[in-house]
Amino acid sequence: MDTFDQCIIKPGTKVDLTKIDPNATFGWNKNDAQEQTQQNFKRIAELQELLYAEKKRGLLIVLQAMDTGGKDGTVRTVGGAMNPAGVQVVSFKSPTEEEKKHGFLWRIRQHLPKLGQVVFFNRSQYEDVCIARIHNLVPENVWRGRYKEINDFEEGLAQPTEEIPEGTSVLKFFLHISKDEQWERFRDRIDNPAKQWKLSEADLKERQYWDDYMKAYSDAITNCSTETAPWAVVPANHKWMRDLIISQITVNHLEGLNMQYPKPSVDIEAIRKKYFSDDQPPSKKPPSPRSHFNPK
Amino acid sequence: MDTFDQCIIKPGTKVDLTKIDPNATFGWNKNDAQEQTQQNFKRIAELQELLYAEKKRGLLIVLQAMDTGGKDGTVRTVGGAMNPAGVQVVSFKSPTEEEKKHGFLWRIRQHLPKLGQVVFFNRSQYEDVCIARIHNLVPENVWRGRYKEINDFEEGLAQPTEEIPEGTSVLKFFLHISKDEQWERFRDRIDNPAKQWKLSEADLKERQYWDDYMKAYSDAITNCSTETAPWAVVPANHKWMRDLIISQITVNHLEGLNMQYPKPSVDIEAIRKKYFSDDQPPSKKPPSPRSHFNPK
Repeated sequence: MDTFDQCIIKPGTKVDLTKIDPNATFGWNKNDAQEQTQQNFKRIAELQELLYAEKKRGLLIVLQAMDTGGKDGTVRTVGGAMNPAGVQVVSFKSPTEEEKKHGFLWRIRQHLPKLGQVVFFNRSQYEDVCIARIHNLVPENVWRGRYKEINDFEEGLAQPTEEIPEGTSVLKFFLHISKDEQWERFRDRIDNPAKQWKLSEADLKERQYWDDYMKAYSDAITNCSTETAPWAVVPANHKWMRDLIISQITVNHLEGLNMQYPKPSVDIEAIRKKYFSDDQPPSKKPPSPRSHFNPK
Repeated sequence: MDTFDQCIIKPGTKVDLTKIDPNATFGWNKNDAQEQTQQNFKRIAELQELLYAEKKRGLLIVLQAMDTGGKDGTVRTVGGAMNPAGVQVVSFKSPTEEEKKHGFLWRIRQHLPKLGQVVFFNRSQYEDVCIARIHNLVPENVWRGRYKEINDFEEGLAQPTEEIPEGTSVLKFFLHISKDEQWERFRDRIDNPAKQWKLSEADLKERQYWDDYMKAYSDAITNCSTETAPWAVVPANHKWMRDLIISQITVNHLEGLNMQYPKPSVDIEAIRKKYFSDDQPPSKKPPSPRSHFNPK
């Protein structure tokens, strides 16, 4: 099984997104990929159940992409493979007036995983070193300084705390589509009445900054892919590759945690003897009357 | 298609759960039920997407049951059919010290659906008229008074507000298992290392109050099934029937809302002309170099 380790950016690597093929399939075809993805989803469900049961750590999955890049789709597919009781999805929009009064990480901190939880960030702190840079929302020395702030922040998440004894791990995925693929997806959105509501002219206009975004993301990924919180660049022109790669990297990560179901809080043998010794329900009463369904 | 309307308790009906068969299948067999349930899940996904897009209302799904009755399972199956971006699951435990300082609805109000959201309550305000009654946590006049408080509260949820212009609808499901079925499920839990951690002796002890719970739930459902927020009693000994019935009632409810995708926020024709007139990407630059994947 391909581990897609080649998508994970090793710390210190200088990333240039324009040199990375958004169409890459690593030799996979669609059918095999979809079959493997379904297996990965089943495994993710098991591992997330374990994460939830173990109650020792959290997992934060950060999704960044250009518009139409597949952040929503990934939440639906990969997030949809998990038990919703243990999942939270947070979509970050333009900061509110309240959020603007605080440092850029303030609103991020409001939504970190609780014990045993998986949180998806649909956009994240990385907007503050990309869109903020491109539209000159802050001076260069400020957004440049944020790389270190983000690294320190993510490093801090990994540390054990009283509430989260094994800390929170972070997986960051950049869903890499080509400018042409974005065009196709916008066109699909404009032609489909069930998708038109998602369309904003601002998104189309933002296309003109495509090259700036590639540069900003390249720099952000270069500066903020760490051992603790690595970035993966996911070729995402093919949605089936995107789902395969993200699901596989997520499975690999969760497998690597060596999680265990917690020990029972009760003495199982004592319980078995006390309540289950004759392997019969303690109540031997005749079954309740089952005359009819309607409670008339 | 069976609408399972017979499971929905008409206001004014006196419910006696001991007269309702937890094994009822209404003529369905497992295969057909599972096939229909899968179709319902697909439809739920579409309708929830619409609810989320429409941003006019909320949906609250309340789950109550005896231990092992299938609340967690329903969240996983029915909730799992939805896009996690629009779903929240809230599990109510014994009230915290902080929660005890407030009225019993206080903590409930903290977790109501936001605009466009579906919220599952795993346990709910109905604990405060059942367990609270059985263990004498409050005097009879208090828990009896709560029926009206709950009805008023749920009626209020349905009302339009500035934030939620079409209000929040409420579906309440009692997952009805037999005492023998609970015994089987406890036994399964005790024999399965991946489930033992869920077992608490308190749950087993609570079984001795089975008849009291049936009475308390019967009364709660009798008093609090309203036109606005109906109760459904779901025969749940067969998990495949439980999922079929809950998914079908949910589909029927969402279909009945006649939701529409919102009008586009932009002038689609103008956008089409401005950006898509020649049906070609505006940028005709040669594609980016795609020499290799690894950003070395």
